[in-house]
Amino acid sequence: MTGHLNEQEIDNILQSQVICRLACCYRHVPYVVPLAYFYDGNALFMQSFDGMKLMIMRRNPRVCVQIDSIQGLKSWKSVLIQGHFQLLTGTAETTARERYFDKIYVLQNNPHIHGFGHEAAAEVIDPIRAKPHLFKISIQSISGRFEQMQ
Amino acid sequence: MTGHLNEQEIDNILQSQVICRLACCYRHVPYVVPLAYFYDGNALFMQSFDGMKLMIMRRNPRVCVQIDSIQGLKSWKSVLIQGHFQLLTGTAETTARERYFDKIYVLQNNPHIHGFGHEAAAEVIDPIRAKPHLFKISIQSISGRFEQMQ
Repeated sequence: MTGHLNEQEIDNILQSQVICRLACCYRHVPYVVPLAYFYDGNALFMQSFDGMKLMIMRRNPRVCVQIDSIQGLKSWKSVLIQGHFQLLTGTAETTARERYFDKIYVLQNNPHIHGFGHEAAAEVIDPIRAKPHLFKISIQSISGRFEQMQ
Repeated sequence: MTGHLNEQEIDNILQSQVICRLACCYRHVPYVVPLAYFYDGNALFMQSFDGMKLMIMRRNPRVCVQIDSIQGLKSWKSVLIQGHFQLLTGTAETTARERYFDKIYVLQNNPHIHGFGHEAAAEVIDPIRAKPHLFKISIQSISGRFEQMQ
């Protein structure tokens, strides 16, 4: 069966996942990339280097974000967000970056290094982890669908 | 380390995966959905009901398709395709639909029903499996990137 996700189910997907697909477009040409995100209950936060997606979103801030949990071709949940891009600066950027890393940081470390009793766990393995731009996607509309094999 | 995938690595991703994210746009509003696809070595084939994505692609056939294999936030491969939508009809549709189902059909069946010695395995469990529209995405440009934790 297929159907629509309710508000709680949509929230569960947004809270439990870490990768979204962010789509944007400029002059009739769409662009989509996978990206880690943090959801604070109201908006999505992501970081980026300079590049194609930032260039596009600065010119056209309308975006579409898709987040899913897929167990199989007949067993999935997918959330679709129509949103608006905003580059963060100053204290808004600092606060968002801290909250972003509270969620994402631990998932980026080498799983073979255990924090307890290993000082190496506190090292930043990848020097490019913090990307120069942090942006917010405010949510204009949101919907969710699912399919579940009987 | 991060880098670009070579032609063979890109082909491996396209051949081995089954879900893509298809992005399209109309009048500055992007739209992205997850979708099963079949890759014949030259183009991608997908099926769809009537709905938002078909309405958009009929008006603006420029699409962007993203296909990935993600093991973790620091271990992933992702392929990006700029392509062109074309709705198939007649024998082109029939041929593409057969090849699509050769790949996708087996993945849509209940994994708990084994084909050998069970006639039920040949039943179509979901009557809406075949969707009314089959379309082709021809590839205008393609690129791939990867990240691999050291």
